[in-house]
Amino acid sequence: MKEAYAQALALRQAATEVGAALIVNDRCDLALAVKADGVHLGQEDLPLADARRLLGRETIIGLSTHTTDQVREAELLKPDYIGFGPIFSTSTKTDHDPVVGIEGLHAARALTTLPMFAIGGIMPDTVGDIMTAGADGVAVISAILKAPDLDAAIRTFQQLCSTQTRPTR
Amino acid sequence: MKEAYAQALALRQAATEVGAALIVNDRCDLALAVKADGVHLGQEDLPLADARRLLGRETIIGLSTHTTDQVREAELLKPDYIGFGPIFSTSTKTDHDPVVGIEGLHAARALTTLPMFAIGGIMPDTVGDIMTAGADGVAVISAILKAPDLDAAIRTFQQLCSTQTRPTR
Repeated sequence: MKEAYAQALALRQAATEVGAALIVNDRCDLALAVKADGVHLGQEDLPLADARRLLGRETIIGLSTHTTDQVREAELLKPDYIGFGPIFSTSTKTDHDPVVGIEGLHAARALTTLPMFAIGGIMPDTVGDIMTAGADGVAVISAILKAPDLDAAIRTFQQLCSTQTRPTR
Repeated sequence: MKEAYAQALALRQAATEVGAALIVNDRCDLALAVKADGVHLGQEDLPLADARRLLGRETIIGLSTHTTDQVREAELLKPDYIGFGPIFSTSTKTDHDPVVGIEGLHAARALTTLPMFAIGGIMPDTVGDIMTAGADGVAVISAILKAPDLDAAIRTFQQLCSTQTRPTR
């Protein structure tokens, strides 16, 4: 945890420098300690209502969802955004939930107006379909971290997400 | 974490009913969420100053120490109490720090007036020596959880700790 704290502090400074939001995974206390912009909660993390009480209205709270039931529940819990996936199979997590596919993303999109970020095995060549299905953006790990040129990979995703026309909701 | 949260909520109610303090290990956010009386930090957890900022002055913050250097540092960090140990070898943690023995406890006691709780492999027959060496109490896990009669084991420890005369500091 001391190492996570040190890394989060360094990321806090880096994020501020480039004007990016810093979202800490799981740990509300770490998020508070380093003044992160938000926290991302999984289905097994602290309940959203408690996190909101600790973090206040100004802090971004995201919630992972993996099924349409969880998306419906998120509509009531009112996170600032939801993650939805895994869209495709991913090597980042070995114990991931069942893949939902583009069809699953379509179905989830119909259930909520919350900002929705698609996650799970997304590569540049599938971003088009994902944005067309109504995602507000994508969350990627290996597609960037395993890319030969990290900076180029990030720019590619940024461009793909911003030029796609999302269906009006 | 959801399970830890549910257990902490149940413990919060139980602790209130018997008038005991509830101290949550490591997680300041969980402690805040269930209104615990305090949090106990290890050397690798969130820095104490940050925990204090999150939790405020009224919340108990304990700190694990394992060496005289860490005890000296604790004197500056001002936790509400420190744990010190492992006094003896313990089966609860497989990766525990080197045992400090009664002599180590004596040496640590000379360095601080902070309330000090001895931990690590303590059984009823060693409580006398530990309290004489200047501990303010003992922290036990297996000596209670592995005892044939849990309630009786707790009463034995309570009695042993309260009847021992601590040296004046």
